[in-house]
Amino acid sequence: MNPKALNMIDVYYAPTPNGIKIPIALEELGVPYRLIPVNLSTNEQKRPEFLQINPNGRIPAIVDPDGPDCEPISVFESGAILQYLAEKFGGLLPKNPRERIRAFEYLYFQIGGVGPMFGQAGWFMRQPEKVAVGIERYQNESRRLTAVLETRLQQSPWLAGDEFSIADIAHFGWLRVASYAGVDLKDYTAVQAWVQRIGERPAVQRALAR
Amino acid sequence: MNPKALNMIDVYYAPTPNGIKIPIALEELGVPYRLIPVNLSTNEQKRPEFLQINPNGRIPAIVDPDGPDCEPISVFESGAILQYLAEKFGGLLPKNPRERIRAFEYLYFQIGGVGPMFGQAGWFMRQPEKVAVGIERYQNESRRLTAVLETRLQQSPWLAGDEFSIADIAHFGWLRVASYAGVDLKDYTAVQAWVQRIGERPAVQRALAR
Repeated sequence: MNPKALNMIDVYYAPTPNGIKIPIALEELGVPYRLIPVNLSTNEQKRPEFLQINPNGRIPAIVDPDGPDCEPISVFESGAILQYLAEKFGGLLPKNPRERIRAFEYLYFQIGGVGPMFGQAGWFMRQPEKVAVGIERYQNESRRLTAVLETRLQQSPWLAGDEFSIADIAHFGWLRVASYAGVDLKDYTAVQAWVQRIGERPAVQRALAR
Repeated sequence: MNPKALNMIDVYYAPTPNGIKIPIALEELGVPYRLIPVNLSTNEQKRPEFLQINPNGRIPAIVDPDGPDCEPISVFESGAILQYLAEKFGGLLPKNPRERIRAFEYLYFQIGGVGPMFGQAGWFMRQPEKVAVGIERYQNESRRLTAVLETRLQQSPWLAGDEFSIADIAHFGWLRVASYAGVDLKDYTAVQAWVQRIGERPAVQRALAR
């Protein structure tokens, strides 16, 4: 057995828009990791042993065997994991303090806006009972949020500014499947080009291949 | 005119669960600030001059005249503002690295979970057309998320651990009005006691009084 494997970060994973964020960040940072699939269809994420890692019973979560005090630490919430990895390994956050602040603005914007609203749009669109008020509310909000990203990406190559960051990674998971929420990226050309540019990054392709 | 007023942080504010987070953090940190009311009923937050500060057209937002390079900087998204203030003024985040990670876990949990889900529950409950599927979905999720907080607060006095942090402030704005989302805090005694304990802090009382 490779002794380095003992220091690998364990990534509790399912192929969802939030799940994909973590392998992408780890590939970009060049950090070795092990994917541990969590079967959402059998509610594996609600089992007591997983609730020890994430009391919210959701993926993604990680366990880093080499935590801050050299003891293992678990981290849940995709935003907190991205921030933890970026700070620990010194990448994916701009060194320029002003751009670093912008990176976090757009990271929180994804966590509190794009993620939940795209998620609700997709859910209502896929219910057997078609509830117009729900479908319209969340599709409209998803489009409004995408327009905010469009304005930003017409001004700068990445969400934080000149540097690719965890803010881009957080959004990529959702925007690459924007049609799930009824958002047609043909209406948002800067977002569409940015999704394609991210998808062509070698680290992103490695993460998607795993 | 008091020359110190020139260095005050401007807080674009409305009395909402997200709005209240920022004055509480500033009072706790002992940082002078000026409240600039934003009239949501006339959509003042969508005016071009405000979109310069927050392109998402939402409150809260701040302008710090003394940004990272001694130039003014605006910050939007309540989570990003809380993080900015905590890092700049060196408070409301545990020094212990493990607890600091927990603070961010629960901060992102509030931004991505409690905030959007409580908000949706309240919205569906107040529509003229009562859509049962919407009311049930978001009330159930709001209660589930509150139960996660209950488990945490039965184990430790504050969400990050032993220290009061921006994670507590972020949740307080929503949990103090939990009934808005159909959540009865009588069912969550640790959360209820924690809300009361936060409400009794002098800094919190000063923020609520303004």
